Amino acid sequence: MDPIGRPEAARAVVEAKRRKNLTWQQIADELGRSRVWTTAALLGKHTVGREQAERVGKLLGLDDITVDALQLPPVRGAAGVDTSEPLVHRLEEIVQVYGGAISELVREEFGDGIMSAIDFEMDLERVPDPAGDRVRITLNGKFLPYREF
Amino acid sequence: MDPIGRPEAARAVVEAKRRKNLTWQQIADELGRSRVWTTAALLGKHTVGREQAERVGKLLGLDDITVDALQLPPVRGAAGVDTSEPLVHRLEEIVQVYGGAISELVREEFGDGIMSAIDFEMDLERVPDPAGDRVRITLNGKFLPYREF
Amino acid sequence: MDPIGRPEAARAVVEAKRRKNLTWQQIADELGRSRVWTTAALLGKHTVGREQAERVGKLLGLDDITVDALQLPPVRGAAGVDTSEPLVHRLEEIVQVYGGAISELVREEFGDGIMSAIDFEMDLERVPDPAGDRVRITLNGKFLPYREF
Amino acid sequence: MDPIGRPEAARAVVEAKRRKNLTWQQIADELGRSRVWTTAALLGKHTVGREQAERVGKLLGLDDITVDALQLPPVRGAAGVDTSEPLVHRLEEIVQVYGGAISELVREEFGDGIMSAIDFEMDLERVPDPAGDRVRITLNGKFLPYREF
Amino acid sequence: MDPIGRPEAARAVVEAKRRKNLTWQQIADELGRSRVWTTAALLGKHTVGREQAERVGKLLGLDDITVDALQLPPVRGAAGVDTSEPLVHRLEEIVQVYGGAISELVREEFGDGIMSAIDFEMDLERVPDPAGDRVRITLNGKFLPYREF
Amino acid sequence: MDPIGRPEAARAVVEAKRRKNLTWQQIADELGRSRVWTTAALLGKHTVGREQAERVGKLLGLDDITVDALQLPPVRGAAGVDTSEPLVHRLEEIVQVYGGAISELVREEFGDGIMSAIDFEMDLERVPDPAGDRVRITLNGKFLPYREF
Amino acid sequence: MDPIGRPEAARAVVEAKRRKNLTWQQIADELGRSRVWTTAALLGKHTVGREQAERVGKLLGLDDITVDALQLPPVRGAAGVDTSEPLVHRLEEIVQVYGGAISELVREEFGDGIMSAIDFEMDLERVPDPAGDRVRITLNGKFLPYREF
Amino acid sequence: MDPIGRPEAARAVVEAKRRKNLTWQQIADELGRSRVWTTAALLGKHTVGREQAERVGKLLGLDDITVDALQLPPVRGAAGVDTSEPLVHRLEEIVQVYGGAISELVREEFGDGIMSAIDFEMDLERVPDPAGDRVRITLNGKFLPYREF
Amino acid sequence: MDPIGRPEAARAVVEAKRRKNLTWQQIADELGRSRVWTTAALLGKHTVGREQAERVGKLLGLDDITVDALQLPPVRGAAGVDTSEPLVHRLEEIVQVYGGAISELVREEFGDGIMSAIDFEMDLERVPDPAGDRVRITLNGKFLPYREF
Amino acid sequence: MDPIGRPEAARAVVEAKRRKNLTWQQIADELGRSRVWTTAALLGKHTVGREQAERVGKLLGLDDITVDALQLPPVRGAAGVDTSEPLVHRLEEIVQVYGGAISELVREEFGDGIMSAIDFEMDLERVPDPAGDRVRITLNGKFLPYREF
Repeated sequence: MDPIGRPEAARAVVEAKRRKNLTWQQIADELGRSRVWTTAALLGKHTVGREQAERVGKLLGLDDITVDALQLPPVRGAAGVDTSEPLVHRLEEIVQVYGGAISELVREEFGDGIMSAIDFEMDLERVPDPAGDRVRITLNGKFLPYREF
Repeated sequence: MDPIGRPEAARAVVEAKRRKNLTWQQIADELGRSRVWTTAALLGKHTVGREQAERVGKLLGLDDITVDALQLPPVRGAAGVDTSEPLVHRLEEIVQVYGGAISELVREEFGDGIMSAIDFEMDLERVPDPAGDRVRITLNGKFLPYREF
Repeated sequence: MDPIGRPEAARAVVEAKRRKNLTWQQIADELGRSRVWTTAALLGKHTVGREQAERVGKLLGLDDITVDALQLPPVRGAAGVDTSEPLVHRLEEIVQVYGGAISELVREEFGDGIMSAIDFEMDLERVPDPAGDRVRITLNGKFLPYREF
Repeated sequence: MDPIGRPEAARAVVEAKRRKNLTWQQIADELGRSRVWTTAALLGKHTVGREQAERVGKLLGLDDITVDALQLPPVRGAAGVDTSEPLVHRLEEIVQVYGGAISELVREEFGDGIMSAIDFEMDLERVPDPAGDRVRITLNGKFLPYREF
Repeated sequence: MDPIGRPEAARAVVEAKRRKNLTWQQIADELGRSRVWTTAALLGKHTVGREQAERVGKLLGLDDITVDALQLPPVRGAAGVDTSEPLVHRLEEIVQVYGGAISELVREEFGDGIMSAIDFEMDLERVPDPAGDRVRITLNGKFLPYREF
Repeated sequence: MDPIGRPEAARAVVEAKRRKNLTWQQIADELGRSRVWTTAALLGKHTVGREQAERVGKLLGLDDITVDALQLPPVRGAAGVDTSEPLVHRLEEIVQVYGGAISELVREEFGDGIMSAIDFEMDLERVPDPAGDRVRITLNGKFLPYREF
Repeated sequence: MDPIGRPEAARAVVEAKRRKNLTWQQIADELGRSRVWTTAALLGKHTVGREQAERVGKLLGLDDITVDALQLPPVRGAAGVDTSEPLVHRLEEIVQVYGGAISELVREEFGDGIMSAIDFEMDLERVPDPAGDRVRITLNGKFLPYREF
Repeated sequence: MDPIGRPEAARAVVEAKRRKNLTWQQIADELGRSRVWTTAALLGKHTVGREQAERVGKLLGLDDITVDALQLPPVRGAAGVDTSEPLVHRLEEIVQVYGGAISELVREEFGDGIMSAIDFEMDLERVPDPAGDRVRITLNGKFLPYREF
Repeated sequence: MDPIGRPEAARAVVEAKRRKNLTWQQIADELGRSRVWTTAALLGKHTVGREQAERVGKLLGLDDITVDALQLPPVRGAAGVDTSEPLVHRLEEIVQVYGGAISELVREEFGDGIMSAIDFEMDLERVPDPAGDRVRITLNGKFLPYREF
Repeated sequence: MDPIGRPEAARAVVEAKRRKNLTWQQIADELGRSRVWTTAALLGKHTVGREQAERVGKLLGLDDITVDALQLPPVRGAAGVDTSEPLVHRLEEIVQVYGGAISELVREEFGDGIMSAIDFEMDLERVPDPAGDRVRITLNGKFLPYREF
């Protein structure tokens, strides 16, 4: 049986999760990590250590080849997400509409620099609302000032 | 003097704000709106009503042509933000890395649908941190389920 | 036999429909849904529930793997339709020619917002006409006003 | 004073309509044409005859140069609409999600051919709904069968 | 043996034609259709009826799977031709150089509208010339006037 | 007064032709050239000699700067035509649908080579038809065989 | 064993040439053609006749399927060369830097027209130079004047 | 009078050359440089020294601002040539058809490396031919081997 | 006199530097910053403080409008550099050829993360070499590890 | 077993290196080459000689097919690196921000020309830093002046 890559391992995880009827929270609890990090990592976007891969493999009943592939380097290129999918497109549209405001406010508040996408964490929660529940996504990244040299 | 459009009005606002040494929060307070909405709206991304435009005009000392232009329809197309600017690019990269995880978690939590970018609000705050302060951006949109017909 | 995805399931549905000599209306009647929703859903663009998948499977004589694949998440990205196909291109051209008019009229009639593509339904009918029958497509989506926050 | 083109004439119409506080329906009534055709035509997407241009010019108080420019050939290229504007993007997304279904149903109902975008008309109405009013857009084009030669 | 699509059927036709040493004209004669329509149709660009497919199948000695595939819906998207191939590129260049003149002349001669690419036929002939034979391609499409509604 | 380029000269020709109420055929007759060549040339796509420019200038009442600009080198790049304009798009679609058939038939009839777009001429005529008049466009180019060296 | 296309035949030729330790010149000598034409032709860019294919097949020890595939029509589209490869990119850069000068000089020397890429031949030689040997590439194409009609 | 850039200086050179009825060769002779280098340099693609600029200025009767602008850094980006112009496109097509052969032959003859586009010269000549004169373009660049470190 | 932006201020700096015959090093010395930072900053890529702008203004004899514009926010989007310019293209090619090796080595040496382009500095020096002097560019950025959350 | 290409050989090297638990430095030492060259070469970006391939094959325990494939010509096109991967993207961003400054400084220091990407070497080191270790990448290429001819 041939070795597989991170995308194939991700598909195997999603399939096994469906068969085992587990939630991402349950898998995250097994790893002691957040739900967002765990989902992103198992979809191939973060490094998964040997012990982490083995615990996930045991929980989901994955074969050794998949457990091995989970430990390969992550693949984070743009091809890994289809920004024309309606759900993801809404995030793109938010950047389109609010990107300028974010730039203004970060510059005013912190000075010249960026919000790190590396020293970064994210959360996603359901906010109950009588007019229809809401999705709340929190982005939290270290401010990095441009270095003057 | 010729009429101007939303982009020119936005530049006039930013210029006047700098001259008057005001913060976006102070302008937002004048309007009784949040800092993010106010900034986005004055940058041309939201509808600004007559009364709102006049209050902003008075606070910033804008001329009538600019106050008039602020009331034109918003221009929200992709050309309005340069996603290759380093600060904005980090948001794109976050969509690239976490877009798949967001899709998975929204589907698991809410079912088939999207987070609205219209019935939507956003916040941006500074989070003090001894290892370097952090930027926290909160996206909050109504979940809209796909209609089965 | 390996599991398949939504596109493969869609091809199997189209093939079986041809073999069984059924119309989309007959399949829609089996589901108690409209013809457009049913067609889009079976082509992979909407969530199909377990019971729905099984009824379609029985009607069309699909194997279990296809019935299973019909229940996978929908795939709605831009790659799912070739906008250079002449029939679809006409729709693109209509957006090109009438998009500005639609924006003007929605803004005048409803204010600042959009027609939802999620809380949305569509119909397609044949309109007999002595000069040549006509295609009538009806788009019907909830107006969503931009939220001021 | 230099002659102007269709886009400049369109801007002049929109500006005059705002100043005169007229609706597109009122302008359409003056021409005895539908609201959608009138809006599209005055935005530069259809041929406007001499008499039509003069009636619009009188109603809106346009100068001769604008009345002249309204009679220039229409400009219908893709650059005339920004498909990344949120409102227009929803139409694109509808083509993306339902384009395949439309192809299937037109082929089943009419045979091999297209819905004309030339021998075509469109309507847009507000549909009152207690859960939020809805936008209804009707596309109506002649079916054109491919010629076998 | 798995079913095949229109592109595979097209390759099988071209291969069989070469083996049988037939011309496109001979195949067209069998169908009672023109050489251009026949070639385009067998390359997958037009609907081929059951009887037509069977006659071609018999003439070229095609297997049942190919005869079946010839009856599938045509695939007419832009991916079906490589416009960078030198021969096809010349056609693109002609549109580039003469497209504006064609627009001017159609508008002058017929008014506002298009030459249909659906109610359309085409011919290709060799024109002997002492300075080197010439290719003559004739495009013939119904003029469709824009509808005023 | 500053010198102008070919595109500006083309606009001046179109404007003068409209004012003088001339047809392209009348201008062509003045030059002793065909209607298509004349239109393309005056739109900036072919070299116009001094004498030709002066005759056109006299017929249309053009100023010296325009007559001078007509003699500048032609500009034939892709930017000179908008292939998304509905009329021109139909030509693109014809290449898309029939490009493969043309390649097959030229190769069968002439061998390996192209139809020249340089040693080339084109005609456009109205063909009366009770079911609606038709546009006939004739492309006529020298066959150029690939050189074996 | 399945039939193969020109690209696969090209790979087989390159592989066999390496195994047999032959130069392109030796293969060209066998065909009585130039080194550049021979290389281009065997890489799939020119028509190779039956006798030519058989001689090459014998020299390189190719199997019948490859000899057959060499006689298929050439594939000359842009996908056949990667212009981002450093060696090829230098040619692109030369067009970028000298394209305007070439246009000026051809127009001055020959009048309005092009250098044919069809009635064309090319040579490539090594030019010894004490400061480092040089590559000399000669392009030689018939001048084709635009036809005035 | 405002300073101008290289593109404006290039246009002034071409215009003055036409007025003075000079050839590129005559200008090249004044500089003691080749015709191709001189043309490319004056079109803005090479550095022109003070003395060179002054000699050209005197020969062509250029004003001081143009002579000054000729000494600005060259602008060699891809925007400086329109590769869709028919004459330039032929060069692109040659790269498309022969790029692979050139790679093969350079590798065989010289080893792994490139033909420099910097330590490079080019010539363009007219080759008389009874069947129609030909354009001969010679590219001559130093071979640069990849460095192994 | 109208205010100007960063690009116009950059052009004014380059022009004044040429007139004053200063080197970038001399300007950098005035600011007590490195040559690379100073050049990038004055070309509009970094924030320039009031005092810095005034010192540069004095040294180069800039007017107040330019000194003011130098203090505007930097503009760092992709449009600010033409990657097809031969010099810059070489950097792109280096990323193309060595990007994979850099990824491998950073991962091996540091683990999963990136080299910061924000907490970053760069140097450029001339390295004398008998075989031709060399350009040495040093990139120096903080390693940022991905955060596990 | 079929022959493989450079990309497949690269994957085999990476896999074997991981299994053998070797560093790139250890492989480089075996070849007597630098770490960067060795990594790039084994990833398929440089020519690997027979002896080099065999030594690597022995060290890593590669099969003959892989050792053979390592000796194929390198593949250096843009498709070989995903510039949207966050680590590589930082290099692109550096070119975006500093490309203009590099052009200015090279021109000032060396005159008109480029830094060679062929007569080039690169180094990558870890620089310990109490505030977080840093990545230092050194680019070192021969300056090549444009040739005046």
